[in-house]
This record gives sequence, C-alpha cells and structure tokens, in this order.
Amino acid sequence: MTDLTNHQIVLRRRPTGLVDPDDVEAIATPAPEPAEGEALVRNTYVGIDAAVRTWLDDKPGYLPPVGIGEVVRAAGVGEVVASRCDAYAVGDVVTTLSAFQEYVIVRDDLFTTVIPGVVDQLAMLSVYGSTGATAYFGMTDIGKPQPGETVVVSAAAGATGSLAGQIAKIAGARVVGIAGGPEKCRVVTEEFGFDACIDHKAGDLEAALREHCPDRVDVYFDNVGGPILDAVLGRLNQGGRIALCGVISSYVTGEHPGPANYVQLLARCGTMQGFNTLNNWGRFEEAFTALKQWEAEGRLVHREHVYDGLDHAVEALNGLFTGTNIGKSVVKVSDPS
Amino acid sequence: MTDLTNHQIVLRRRPTGLVDPDDVEAIATPAPEPAEGEALVRNTYVGIDAAVRTWLDDKPGYLPPVGIGEVVRAAGVGEVVASRCDAYAVGDVVTTLSAFQEYVIVRDDLFTTVIPGVVDQLAMLSVYGSTGATAYFGMTDIGKPQPGETVVVSAAAGATGSLAGQIAKIAGARVVGIAGGPEKCRVVTEEFGFDACIDHKAGDLEAALREHCPDRVDVYFDNVGGPILDAVLGRLNQGGRIALCGVISSYVTGEHPGPANYVQLLARCGTMQGFNTLNNWGRFEEAFTALKQWEAEGRLVHREHVYDGLDHAVEALNGLFTGTNIGKSVVKVSDPS
Repeated sequence: MTDLTNHQIVLRRRPTGLVDPDDVEAIATPAPEPAEGEALVRNTYVGIDAAVRTWLDDKPGYLPPVGIGEVVRAAGVGEVVASRCDAYAVGDVVTTLSAFQEYVIVRDDLFTTVIPGVVDQLAMLSVYGSTGATAYFGMTDIGKPQPGETVVVSAAAGATGSLAGQIAKIAGARVVGIAGGPEKCRVVTEEFGFDACIDHKAGDLEAALREHCPDRVDVYFDNVGGPILDAVLGRLNQGGRIALCGVISSYVTGEHPGPANYVQLLARCGTMQGFNTLNNWGRFEEAFTALKQWEAEGRLVHREHVYDGLDHAVEALNGLFTGTNIGKSVVKVSDPS
Repeated sequence: MTDLTNHQIVLRRRPTGLVDPDDVEAIATPAPEPAEGEALVRNTYVGIDAAVRTWLDDKPGYLPPVGIGEVVRAAGVGEVVASRCDAYAVGDVVTTLSAFQEYVIVRDDLFTTVIPGVVDQLAMLSVYGSTGATAYFGMTDIGKPQPGETVVVSAAAGATGSLAGQIAKIAGARVVGIAGGPEKCRVVTEEFGFDACIDHKAGDLEAALREHCPDRVDVYFDNVGGPILDAVLGRLNQGGRIALCGVISSYVTGEHPGPANYVQLLARCGTMQGFNTLNNWGRFEEAFTALKQWEAEGRLVHREHVYDGLDHAVEALNGLFTGTNIGKSVVKVSDPS
C-alpha cells in the first residue's frame, strides 16, 4: 500500500472570511496502511458543506475545529481498496467523514456507511447523504408542512434548500423559494418545481413576501439567517414553524446579528427550532427510503455542481458563500471504478 | 342605574417609555345602563399586566391598540350589579376584559368568566386568571420540565415567573430564578421555593449561570428578552426549550435587539416558542384545576401587590418596568361585598 500517494489539503492558518489560497496547502504523503479493524478508502468525491468552513474556526461546535496542519475535514464517498475490517470488503462504496484528500482510513463506526440500493456515488453526497437527510428531517420533523400551507425556503437553489422545498411540495404545500439572482430563481421554479421564487437581490424582500405569501408563512426552512430571517419572521403566520438549518450569512463574517423580529414568535405563537442531522443518524434509512421512492416516482430531482480535482476545493468552498453554486457542490477526487 | 358614577382613566396621548401622568386623565362619567343581553359589573380589582402597556402603543397586536380618549384596557374582576343577560346573575363574581374604571358592561362572551370554586377575588387576577394560565401553559406545554432537569425563569419574583418556577418544581425540576436585587431573590427562594436565584443586577450573569446551572439549562421561561435571553441561550443544553412569554426589556424602550445567541438553537438543537394564553381559553379549566389542587396541597403559593385606588394605576403599571413589584400587581377599585 505504501506506494500510494495521498494528495491532501491541509490547514496552515485560520481563515478570516473567505478562505484565502494561502490559508491551506496542497501536500502529498504516503497513503496510510490500515491497521487491524480498519479499511482504506479511496475517495471519489468530497462534499462541500457550509459546516466545513465553520470547522476552520477555532470555536467549539458539534465537532472539534480542524487543527493547524490537519487535513480539512469534509464528508466523502469512496471505494474500499484495502480492508482489515469485517464491516467492509474491497470494492464496497461507502460514505465517510473524510477530508480534502484522496485516501482515508475508516473503521466500523457511526460515520462510515454503506447505503443499500444506491449506486450513484455523486448522489450519496447530496440527496442520499447528510444533505438529503437534513432536508428531510428539518422539513418533516420541524416544518411539518400541511396541504395548502405556505412554505418558504431560503438558499432555495442550494443543495439542502432545493430538496427541502420539493419535500414540502410532495406534502401538498405551496412552496416559495428565496434565492439570489434570476438564473437561480429560474432553476428553482423550472427544475425544482417550486411555485414561486423571490430574488432577494432584486429589491424589497418584505413586499415580495407579501405578494408571494398572501396567507402569510406557515413554515420557513432557514439556511441563511440575517436580514432574510427577520423579513420572514415579519410575515410569519399564526402557529408558524421555523426550522433553523444554517446561518450562511454569518459563517464567513463571523457576525450573528440577532433576529430582532423574533418577537413575532410571541405575537404569532411561532416556533423556531434548531436541529442537527447527525442526531438522527439512526433514522437515515427512513429518510433515504422516502427520498428514493420520491425520486423513482419522478417527484424529486437533485442536482450537483462538480468541481474537478482537489485543487478546486477552496474555490468550491468559497462558492457556497459567494453564491456561485446551484445544487450540491462536490469536488471530484478520483474516478469511480 | 344612572345615578352611579364611573371613575375612569382614559388615554390622552400615547406614552413614550414609561407612562407620564399627563398621558392619561382621570374622568368621571355616568355608569352605563346594560342593554338586553348585557350585565353591569362593578370592578373590585383590575390587573396590571405588561400587555396593558403594549396596548397603549399604536401597533398591531393580538388586541387592537387603545384609542386616544378610550379607557385604558385591563383585565378585571368584579361583581354583577345589574343583569339583563341569562349568563350572569346579580352578585356573581366574574373576571372580565375590563379597563381602568369602576363599572364595565359585559355580555356572554369569551372574556367574561365565572371561575367555579374560586372565591378569592384577588387570586382571580393572579393564579386563577390569565397570569396563572400563562405560567401553566407556558411551562407545561412548551417547557415540559422533566425530573432532574434544570429550569431557569426570569422575572422570577413577578406574577407569572413566580408561578412558572413553582410549576417546574412540582414537575421535579431544579429551578433557578433570575430577579433584580437581593430582596427579590430572597423572596424567590424563601417564599416561592426556587432552588436558587441569580441577582442580574449583581454582575456577571454568564458566570452566575455557569455556577448555578452546572448541567446547563434545559428549560428557560423567558419574561424579559434582551441580554438575559442571550445569556441563557449561551448556556442552553442539548434539546433545550425556551418558552417566550414576554419581552419586558423592550415594552418601554420599544427596542427589540435580536438575540444574537439564537444560533445556539442550532448548536444545541434547541427550540424557542412563543405562545398566547388566550389561544388556550378552552383549556383554562384544566389549568385552574391543577393550580387549585397544588395550592390546596400547600405546594403552590401566590402573592399579590395591591395598589389602593385607580389613582395609582399608572404608578402600578410603570412599576412593572422599573421592577418595584413582587408577585402580581393589582389595583383595588372598590371593596368586595
């Protein structure tokens, strides 16, 4: 095994705002040998999630920060190329808690999973990965959309938002997306089938919400925080539910302006609830079973934005915050066999 | 009936901040005659709630603002002195949606209630009124305290907070109050039986929360908003629940700084939920039955702060925001018969 070279992207200094190319370094090391109970996985794709950026800050979270000199952590999908572990055989396709690198050591643990019945490795990082599970649990457990209700989803052209909105449509709700720019809004309505999409860069968001949500907002799936959260709070319906999925507006700036309109939760008996998909690990099969059925029925589509090669990982990560991507951003690390 | 004089406090101009004595005027008018289907009630007490102050602003809420020249709205308890209505007989003691005045016309509606088995007119405005119902529904429906959990209650010496904390104690939780000043903190622990009480005027609230909530905060009953809400959010436990009952820090200033720490809801999978007691009108009997039993068992105490005479109504209302009261503030309008 030692003749394999492991290309990696390691953290050299903590970024301020967007990741500067000099904050990381591309290095090459010998691929590790699996010890007893371990397997070696060759990554085909790594996923680009907003969480990756949060792990680069020296702040406590649900996972520890990436240390200086450590490989940048990210979800991955890959193929087992060597195994000294009963759980995985050579050739198995597994999703892993990996990193920006070609090879990763895994063991039989919570974060390494074979997804039965799914062969599309790209989809394992989007709809059949934590992204799909996040959309599913956030929308079904917290949003609980009912037929005829109005559901708003921010970052609607993004990986999670595009799926969350479709799940609400399947539940019979009227779904209004919020996205940045006319091309994203076009994709949100034409490809993802939302009933409408508001371009938040186009002007008066409050007026657009009044126009597109005449019966107010029953469910808001919030990926962004910031002024958009405040605007939707101001349009919340009685008994409205807000699923807090992310605060993408603040991951790069580090600023978390509080939602001053949270007092609308009192006036409207609303609920704002955070969730962590990893807490639902034991229910991923439930989510994937539902998502697979909807995809098979032609009611759910997913889209990925593939960056070719680890050299593009930083560009892909920054793209989440500058708003360049549509669908799930992934970096292709090697060819699937 | 026309020989009865109705002393009233009417709104002359909208207050900025605390109510200025010149914002209102004491007037005397002939008491109204009940029409068919109506009854005339002589108020014994009117309740002083933070909501009264919000109704003086020209802002939409769950009830319309009090108009200029109208009597200041407030909850009341009183005795029926004339009736042309099947629902009430002369001598009945009823709680009403009344105003700062001696006499009020009522009809058989949602807001006029006879509370079976309760004869203490003062208690009808506190524990057996919307105050008690607010504490009960907020704590049991949203807080859902479990044995051994840590519950924090702000404005713990106040009408709602003192009851909410006792309800959590009865549920088996460890209850920590937050109040302003050593005398209030003494009452909170010695009279209301909380396990501890933090004096938020004494200094470092974050440090005090770490000391008194070593296992973090499972439930927060929030009466105040502002920096105290942010501090408790920072100490929230996994799966923590925040019952949003009020924003007393902002009712007078008109400012609602958003809770910047709301992102802790994501990190801790927490829930922040507003509620409106009036939506639970149909369940008031459930609340009062439980509260009466707890009081009879000696597990629940309530305390009222009585201001004598309508002339003190403005002083009583301002006292809610300057923090002078312990327990429920009421204004005595006339002697119970």
